[in-house]
Parts: sequence; C-alpha cells; structure tokens
Amino acid sequence: MTLKIIGFEVSSNTLSVIACLNELGLPYQIENPASWHALKEEDFLANKHPFGRIPVLYDGDYKITETRAICRYLVSKYQGKHNDTILIPHDINEAGLIDQLISYEVSYYEPLLKTIVLQEVFKLHPENHEIIKHTCEEIDKVLKVYDKLLEGKEYLNGEFSLADLLHCPYTQYIYSSTKHNDLWDKRPNVKKWWDRISNRDAWKKAWKISRDAWAAGDK
Amino acid sequence: MTLKIIGFEVSSNTLSVIACLNELGLPYQIENPASWHALKEEDFLANKHPFGRIPVLYDGDYKITETRAICRYLVSKYQGKHNDTILIPHDINEAGLIDQLISYEVSYYEPLLKTIVLQEVFKLHPENHEIIKHTCEEIDKVLKVYDKLLEGKEYLNGEFSLADLLHCPYTQYIYSSTKHNDLWDKRPNVKKWWDRISNRDAWKKAWKISRDAWAAGDK
Repeated sequence: MTLKIIGFEVSSNTLSVIACLNELGLPYQIENPASWHALKEEDFLANKHPFGRIPVLYDGDYKITETRAICRYLVSKYQGKHNDTILIPHDINEAGLIDQLISYEVSYYEPLLKTIVLQEVFKLHPENHEIIKHTCEEIDKVLKVYDKLLEGKEYLNGEFSLADLLHCPYTQYIYSSTKHNDLWDKRPNVKKWWDRISNRDAWKKAWKISRDAWAAGDK
Repeated sequence: MTLKIIGFEVSSNTLSVIACLNELGLPYQIENPASWHALKEEDFLANKHPFGRIPVLYDGDYKITETRAICRYLVSKYQGKHNDTILIPHDINEAGLIDQLISYEVSYYEPLLKTIVLQEVFKLHPENHEIIKHTCEEIDKVLKVYDKLLEGKEYLNGEFSLADLLHCPYTQYIYSSTKHNDLWDKRPNVKKWWDRISNRDAWKKAWKISRDAWAAGDK
C-alpha cells in the first residue's frame, strides 16, 4: 500500500485529507504540484483532476479526487485496520447522521469561513469590509445553530467523527490568522467543541505540516 | 416501514429524493410544509431542519436531512431490497468514484445551473443578463469536461448511478423552462447521456409529480 496525496499542505482541502489519514493511522507521501497555476494546465487537467483541483489521492494505481470523496474512501477501505478510531460508524442510521452533518459543513459553514480566509489570510481577493462584516453576521447565526446542536454533546454527533474533522481547516485559519475567533469563543458549546477537535493529535500533526510548508513559502 | 418526505415537489432537492425513492422501488408519502416561509419559522427550525431547508426524510421515527445524505442513507438501507437497481456499487473503489462524481455535481455543475434556474424559472432573483451570459460561458466549459468524461461511456461512471440521478432536476429545468439547452445538445456525449438519464421511468415519474404540483400553483 502506497498512499500519495497530490496537493499543497496549506490548502484547507489537502489538510482535511492529511488529518483523515492521520486519524486512521495511515502512512502517506505528499507531492506538491509545480505551482498553483500548474493545476489549470493541460497535463494536470488530463491526468490528475479534470476541473484542476487538489487534493488528488493515489492508492497504488487507484486515483480519487474531491476531499470528502477521498475521506469516505479512506474510511471505507482502512477504518479499523491500523487503529480503533471510528470516523464513520458502521450503523446505517448513525452513518446517515454523519453524512447529514458533513453536508451542513459544506453547505452552511465552509462557504462563509472561506470568504473570510481567502480575503484575510490567503489575500486571494481584495479585502472588502462590507462583505466581511456581513459574512461575520451570517457566521454568527450559523454558530448559534451549532451551539444548540452541540448542547449536551462532546462532538456534533455525540462521538468524534469525520464531520467534526472536516470543520478543522477553515476554523483553524480563523483562530490562527484572523481576529474573528470571538464569534466562536462566545458560544460555550462551540468553544468547548473547538478545543476538543483542535487538540486531537491527528489534527495538531496535520496543522504543523501545514505551518511548516507555509513558513517555507509554499502558499 | 413508512417513508415520508417533507418538501415541495417543485424543489430540485426534493425531486432528487423522490427520484431516488422511485429508483429503489420504495413507497413513500410527500408532505408539503405550510409555505416556503414556514421553513424559516421556529417550529420548522426546532423540529425539522435547523437551517430551514427541505427535503427532510422520516423513516419511521428516524429523521434525516440534506438531499445527498438522504439518498446515501436510502441506498445503504434499501438498495437491492425491492428491485435490482444499483445506485452505489458495493465495491469500495467504484463507490469512491461515484462519491467523486457526486462532488463534481455539487461543486462545479449545480451552482451554475441554479443561478440560471432561480432567475429564469423560479423568478426568485431579478434577471441579470450579464450574469446569465457569464454563467452560460462557465456552463459551456463544464460541459466540455463532461463530454470528455462521458467519452465511450453510457453514464458518468459507466453504469447508471446516484451521480447521474443527481444531475436530473436542474438539467430538466434548463430543458423544460429555458432556452439554454443548446449548451447540452451541442455536446454529443452529453446529449446522449441526458437522453438516457431523463428517460428513465423513475425520473419521468418524479418529474410528472413535480409538474403536477407546479400546475396546481405549488411553487
């Protein structure tokens, strides 16, 4: 078994896959594309990802793209083989609820955080204070819902799962590189949840890899 | 087993779940919320969906939300029990590729079609010809990729799957209620694929239910 990720360690999507591999106790290699521009060039589009995205995972000759598809694949194939961590429960009803929470993250959480992080952290879009203000108001509403979802629970579905893990990259960027973390800190259940998920060894190891790449100028 | 969908038949997300239930040969009831506004009211938020969305599926006492999570749940629980239709293969590698294609639909296909359909069909946003022109150019690029993905294949992953099904609602709205279908028709593999997926009994039955509700003014 050789697991190889094509991606950049600073990319939140690549980070999710790295964290998932760490959680499952799997060894892997990371290979960086030549540049961000290279993702849109013919060779990458023809051989890696037809829409020019990262990460791409190779498991031997098998290739799979798209962060959440890669994570689900890794869970289906390797969960329980290298350690006892369960990211998606075997019970169909419980697995359905994890899928539901993953969809909440994709649909209602990530797009808002991404707007902030692309402007304030990656500087990919010019900072627009009106958009940031409006986005923070929307984040506040979403976190109010999360605080209620987390009432009496340590994790979104009770036990730790892939749904929690997928919230880490963008939330970590908010905490590490913006001043908006008060939106999280003021919600007691959200704050405790974030402390729990961001202190897992798998995540801390993933984030360190990412920070080292950032420090090396790889962004 | 009593399967109940809370949703509106004209909603593309509700339509996906109806089509999935039809494909799996499952009986179901559809219950309409009091209005679109009711989705954002306290009772719906507290008891149905915390972010005020449809569809919601009840399987007896079990409740699950979010279209793709609902469909995956239905497949995990009922696939093969009422007919031979396979929406997600049992093979882990093949299932991973279906997940990847579902993510392509969510990330690169649906947002573009949604922009058009919300303006031109549902009239939820004022028509902006510049946005529509730009969106059509983007759709054209995406369909160029799809035409290549479909080269030598009847369906996106070879055999029909949940990934194909999830493309139906918005594409059907484009064909039935806009003049942009030439973007699909001019791509030979895309055109043949659309003819195949839109002529499946499960889809035709779902679309008829939706059209009947539309005619009854339920939009």
